[in-house]
Amino acid sequence: MALTEMQNRLANAIRGLAIDGVEAAKSGHPGMPMGMADVATVLFTRFLKFDAANPHWADRDRFILSAGHGSMLLYSLLYLTGVPGMTVEELKHFRQLGHKTPGHPENFHTVGVETTTGPLGQGISTAVGFAFAEKMLAAQFGKKVVDHYTYVLASDGDLMEGVSQEAIALAGHYKLNKMIVLWDHNGISIDGPLTLSDSVDQIKRFQAAGWRAVNVDGHDQDAVAAAIEAAQKSNKPTLIACKTTIGFGSPHRAGTSKAHGEPLGPEEAKLSKENLGITGAPFEVPADVLKAWREAGSRGATARQAWEERFATLSERKQAEFNRRMGHVRPAKLGKAILAHKKALAAAPTAMATRKSSEAALNAIVEVMPELVLGSADLTPSNNTKAKGLVEITPKDFKGRYIHWGIREHGMAAAMNGIYLHGGFVPAGGTFFVFTDYARPAIRLAALMGTAPVYVMTHDSIGLGEDGPTHQPVEHLAACRAIPNMRVFRPCDAIETAECWQLALERTNGPTILALTRQNLPLLREATTANLCAQGAYELAGTGGGKAAVTLFASGSEVEIAMNARAILNQRGVPTRVVSVPSLELFIAQSEEVKAKIIGDAPVKVAVEAAVRFGWDAVIGIDGGFVGMTGFGASGPIKDLYNHFGITAEAVAETALRRHNG
Amino acid sequence: MALTEMQNRLANAIRGLAIDGVEAAKSGHPGMPMGMADVATVLFTRFLKFDAANPHWADRDRFILSAGHGSMLLYSLLYLTGVPGMTVEELKHFRQLGHKTPGHPENFHTVGVETTTGPLGQGISTAVGFAFAEKMLAAQFGKKVVDHYTYVLASDGDLMEGVSQEAIALAGHYKLNKMIVLWDHNGISIDGPLTLSDSVDQIKRFQAAGWRAVNVDGHDQDAVAAAIEAAQKSNKPTLIACKTTIGFGSPHRAGTSKAHGEPLGPEEAKLSKENLGITGAPFEVPADVLKAWREAGSRGATARQAWEERFATLSERKQAEFNRRMGHVRPAKLGKAILAHKKALAAAPTAMATRKSSEAALNAIVEVMPELVLGSADLTPSNNTKAKGLVEITPKDFKGRYIHWGIREHGMAAAMNGIYLHGGFVPAGGTFFVFTDYARPAIRLAALMGTAPVYVMTHDSIGLGEDGPTHQPVEHLAACRAIPNMRVFRPCDAIETAECWQLALERTNGPTILALTRQNLPLLREATTANLCAQGAYELAGTGGGKAAVTLFASGSEVEIAMNARAILNQRGVPTRVVSVPSLELFIAQSEEVKAKIIGDAPVKVAVEAAVRFGWDAVIGIDGGFVGMTGFGASGPIKDLYNHFGITAEAVAETALRRHNG
Repeated sequence: MALTEMQNRLANAIRGLAIDGVEAAKSGHPGMPMGMADVATVLFTRFLKFDAANPHWADRDRFILSAGHGSMLLYSLLYLTGVPGMTVEELKHFRQLGHKTPGHPENFHTVGVETTTGPLGQGISTAVGFAFAEKMLAAQFGKKVVDHYTYVLASDGDLMEGVSQEAIALAGHYKLNKMIVLWDHNGISIDGPLTLSDSVDQIKRFQAAGWRAVNVDGHDQDAVAAAIEAAQKSNKPTLIACKTTIGFGSPHRAGTSKAHGEPLGPEEAKLSKENLGITGAPFEVPADVLKAWREAGSRGATARQAWEERFATLSERKQAEFNRRMGHVRPAKLGKAILAHKKALAAAPTAMATRKSSEAALNAIVEVMPELVLGSADLTPSNNTKAKGLVEITPKDFKGRYIHWGIREHGMAAAMNGIYLHGGFVPAGGTFFVFTDYARPAIRLAALMGTAPVYVMTHDSIGLGEDGPTHQPVEHLAACRAIPNMRVFRPCDAIETAECWQLALERTNGPTILALTRQNLPLLREATTANLCAQGAYELAGTGGGKAAVTLFASGSEVEIAMNARAILNQRGVPTRVVSVPSLELFIAQSEEVKAKIIGDAPVKVAVEAAVRFGWDAVIGIDGGFVGMTGFGASGPIKDLYNHFGITAEAVAETALRRHNG
Repeated sequence: MALTEMQNRLANAIRGLAIDGVEAAKSGHPGMPMGMADVATVLFTRFLKFDAANPHWADRDRFILSAGHGSMLLYSLLYLTGVPGMTVEELKHFRQLGHKTPGHPENFHTVGVETTTGPLGQGISTAVGFAFAEKMLAAQFGKKVVDHYTYVLASDGDLMEGVSQEAIALAGHYKLNKMIVLWDHNGISIDGPLTLSDSVDQIKRFQAAGWRAVNVDGHDQDAVAAAIEAAQKSNKPTLIACKTTIGFGSPHRAGTSKAHGEPLGPEEAKLSKENLGITGAPFEVPADVLKAWREAGSRGATARQAWEERFATLSERKQAEFNRRMGHVRPAKLGKAILAHKKALAAAPTAMATRKSSEAALNAIVEVMPELVLGSADLTPSNNTKAKGLVEITPKDFKGRYIHWGIREHGMAAAMNGIYLHGGFVPAGGTFFVFTDYARPAIRLAALMGTAPVYVMTHDSIGLGEDGPTHQPVEHLAACRAIPNMRVFRPCDAIETAECWQLALERTNGPTILALTRQNLPLLREATTANLCAQGAYELAGTGGGKAAVTLFASGSEVEIAMNARAILNQRGVPTRVVSVPSLELFIAQSEEVKAKIIGDAPVKVAVEAAVRFGWDAVIGIDGGFVGMTGFGASGPIKDLYNHFGITAEAVAETALRRHNG
């Protein structure tokens, strides 16, 4: 169906701004915004429930630009609808340092951006988390407070990434019917036509995953509208495959790879705007068109007011709880619960794997922290994530707090980002530590965005034994510690585990990995009131006043080994301290003063960790001794492995003695 | 159809050994081998083209156990068919250190294992590479020498991992019709029935990806045989969904999660064997059954002999070339070609991005190294991987040497492992460096297995500019350097780039990452005959004899900055050396003597790298200065970013001066 003149002009406002923004930056991706302008116009002027003046309204529909390279589409929409902060000046400074219009959308940077996208596949997978959170929060607070859609604009590339399969399988299985994906099916990728490398029937693929999936002409606004309307009524998530022309309107680049990722250039930009009937100076939007867009932006104000009235009918306690959880304020009782748990542990010391200690900590936490949602990528009995009393979420009932993610580490981590960003929940999910590799792109985004999920990563070293090197992390501590804003904790016993959980859950500006053992570890710690893990390291055992000749540093399961080595060394008359280092990178980030005090001045420093040395020189120095792994592990019983790789108290003591005597 | 008695006994031989192996280890996964014993029996006794006595025969069918946890299935088959080295003693020492029967199959450890599996999704994705290699090698050497199938045994979990989608999309698009997947559709995962977390219609999903897909009763051997026969004739890859019972034969555990990953226990093991009619001592196989299995193992001997006769009809030159390539012997001319290229570069110095330098090096290499196959995950114009004269591979023609992998970094990396392992090719594939995160599980396997693909990772720092922090690697150098047996090169100019390519391609025991810039870099090096990158670091600029006060260390794009800082420092009367560090971890691995010489004895050490410090302390020491990144990057033009983050010659000089004067 032909567009009305106004429909066309509304869409062309996006196209004009996208062309101008990319031209000004001399860098960027004009093709997607030009191609999807019609679809975005329909969504934002007719469907999306939002109030531009109140972009944080809790019950707004979420719009996720999975095809993050087309960021000018989103910035144009934020400007056109009148979201505070997105001025025309910002558009003019697209992709410039210090502006709200970075190359790819960054939610921690720009109001109105729901999540950070750009790495393909992340948006659609994160959106699954938003849709999950909506269902869960609605189940807990009622539909009159929580009832919104999650819309995704996805590209061909998003659907080629493997994580998209994990995402759509989850959405299909859990019947996240309020998730609606608008797929920009332009058939063009960077290397050329998509047919160079792809021939997947996406409609059939999504149907196979339990979705409703339909085709539509992405330049027929009424047809798109009809498709969205039908999608809203579906009991399944919906894929709307929008057949579009990339770079729509560009006489020479439309429908080509060149439209994707480079500016049109002044000449083609001019021709394109003429072709589209866009007149006026760059970044100028005709007054009547801007007015119509602004009206679209305030379209949701009445719905928001009505929501506020409904919200006001909740009990004050419930309102406060809703606001607390949406604002990511942690429950007041958390600290006390942890302390009580620590005392209980100290009162009845037992040897326990830290994965079990983690479960014990969770048993103490889940009651006081109702927003904590746990889950596992099909390793529940190994990760020990299903704390006491947690009920499973099922496609029919979202009241529970435990999610079976299936064997989908990457999809789980991405969805956890969405759950956190939606608000109302803190997600924690488990798998084996070695499989952080599978989830790494989403884990990195958590660190970049400053979301604070918790990754419960068990089987954290060769200590897992017989499964062998494919399952034994040796480089993962280093690889995860290197991520900015990431916190990796590797507790040495049940009390440290509780402390690390506390730090992880109190954190609201970044993610935490808990690296936990399969094997039993003795209780080494007392139940101090202070959280000794908070600085990343602390003296676990001193010399009782005298000068130390040796300081041993260790994390996790190797702290026990260090303590045994200390006993050997003390016996041999070498006064030895042990510093427990539950978080190496957190410790390295402390002030020089704090570090100097904890590191101490013993002439001999030896670190022991069943992992590669990489990163440890920052504490022990180049001359420091290191007892750990130099390569991959092997398959065998745990004791054989520790002996084979020489990670023993005797080896640690010998390493220290060699330096002490040498 | 009911099984014949011998069919049943052949399958039960596998079941019995699997039960006994897991019982002996008190650890392992009996469920899959018991469930897939019938399917494996059909494949190995009736279809798989192999000659157990000659497990390295180039044209054997490849069998990939994607469900690597069921390793006892594979070990049983190797033993039963008589593959050298797999004795009953090895089976008795399942999962014990120093034996050929590790927890998950390791090809570098056990003859007859084609690839290392266990991390789910890897086997099926690596198999795509095997199937690719078969088609490519057949196109180059003819069907009379290369003509085999690639069979995969995959689990429910394999199909849930996102990478499986990338794999099946590739296989479907390229019509890898000689790839046949036997899916162990037992409907059970660790957390419980698969229905807890999954409801994908796999038949429909595979069909959507261009596969033939059929259902079969996995315990009806003749039906399985008919399905394989039909699959062999298909012009598409085939999924055979084998409905099976996990732990088949176990009275109390069959069909349950408990059968998956733990020993049956003595009592249930006994009951299971009784139930299956297995008598005799543990690990005992009835003589007539073993005989039948051994006959199956030698079934392919005549086919192998016929192949050898056909092979002998090739010209001697062609035979030698085939053997050279299958044996991963590098072409003799490679070194000369690189040296000539270096001299040409030195003769006409120009500023070039190292991604362009890489293309220039490739242009010099591809002619002398016909086994080098290049490709990109849809970033060909950015990665500059399509060297002069390379022809694309298409579903209809596999003679080319360039693969469009689509936006599938993980699938690409996994398939590259398969291509390498098959033999005949060295694959090199490109994407942005930040997206090593997407491919990491397959990259890790390359390092573990010692395959030697090359990852062409461009846009290696904030130097990529406007795309912003989602695309700017800052921790990836550290994260990749930490992987054992990984080599990360970050060359500083065109000559270093050529040297790094040489080292990458001459390597035959592990993978190499080339981290390359988007931005132009000047030529800093002379064309030495020696490959100066071979020790990871070398003095690029000295003091001309005098004692150095400062040594600056840098890699890649920051070597230019270090050289400029040196000029500033020299001007201020501070004699300064520059050490180029194209590979930090390779340098750290050198002898103390070599390191000491290159590091030198200047009292001040400063490193500069547009990445996090993590790992550098091993060279510069705790007190060393570091100019680099402390967090994520930002979106903006490159110059603004380097200034904003203070990675400038002035900042380096100042850091050195502060230490020099302080």
